[in-house]
Amino acid sequence: MTMKPKIACLLGEDFEDSELELPRDRLIGAGFDVEVIGARAGAELRGKRGEVTERVEKSIDSANPEDYAALFIPGGYSPDHIRADRRFVDFVLRFEALKRPVAAICHGPQLLITAGLVRGRRLTAWTTIQDDLRQVGANVQDAPVVVDGNWITSRQPSDLPAFSEALLSTLR
Amino acid sequence: MTMKPKIACLLGEDFEDSELELPRDRLIGAGFDVEVIGARAGAELRGKRGEVTERVEKSIDSANPEDYAALFIPGGYSPDHIRADRRFVDFVLRFEALKRPVAAICHGPQLLITAGLVRGRRLTAWTTIQDDLRQVGANVQDAPVVVDGNWITSRQPSDLPAFSEALLSTLR
Repeated sequence: MTMKPKIACLLGEDFEDSELELPRDRLIGAGFDVEVIGARAGAELRGKRGEVTERVEKSIDSANPEDYAALFIPGGYSPDHIRADRRFVDFVLRFEALKRPVAAICHGPQLLITAGLVRGRRLTAWTTIQDDLRQVGANVQDAPVVVDGNWITSRQPSDLPAFSEALLSTLR
Repeated sequence: MTMKPKIACLLGEDFEDSELELPRDRLIGAGFDVEVIGARAGAELRGKRGEVTERVEKSIDSANPEDYAALFIPGGYSPDHIRADRRFVDFVLRFEALKRPVAAICHGPQLLITAGLVRGRRLTAWTTIQDDLRQVGANVQDAPVVVDGNWITSRQPSDLPAFSEALLSTLR
């Protein structure tokens, strides 16, 4: 039996339920292992709609960026929680240095802002974050999915089919 | 009987309960009338902790900036919700033009970012928003309260006593 390639999912409280669930199911269906990385292994994280509860499989302290084929950042309130914790920002910086796929949806790009990575990059995000991104110097497009090199970004739950498809294409 | 001076409170879903309740009670105690302005008059807005529920007294459509002595923006997830609605951003711009006191705490300054007002201003906010503000060109200070002309800003619930006091001082 061969090991499945792993996808790192950075997650905190009050994530947008569907933005975790749908891409995760697509990735698992395509033969990937999605590992939920949080502040504390074993903690239960709840989606903001109360529809999905997720157990943290690995603590951010013990997660090694080199172990993952891609980074996946669901939206909701989760990104603003985890970007307050420097360990998540450092993980993003170390992962980005590998130039492997980074997929962020909705408020996910807030983590890319805090990592100082967005100036001059082409991306999209939730409507309010699009404006933050513009003011920080990003090249923002209001489209269902924007692919810029290793970055795949989307705006909202209705973009999930395009988002998942673009991430899978990049991984193939 | 004389009319009490009115304070405009811009509010959306999932505000930080204490950041509405404590300044409001201090303002009422000091003889002001705090009017909650939301997307739809009569709607019930719930705090993110479920401790405070607030009825919207006036719709943003019928609120006139000139009727208020100060603008008060509580934090939590509320500011990111209302800044997605251009009517709230326009209200902030029209109020700011009057140069009357603007008090924002925690995520409240997100509304000031979307209004395009923060570049070159001195202010504070919730830790993650402090970083957004820096990248947008604001002069950020990590202090319990920062007063810059007509702006009074604070970081978090533990700053509430200093925040309320500074707002009341500015109003006197």
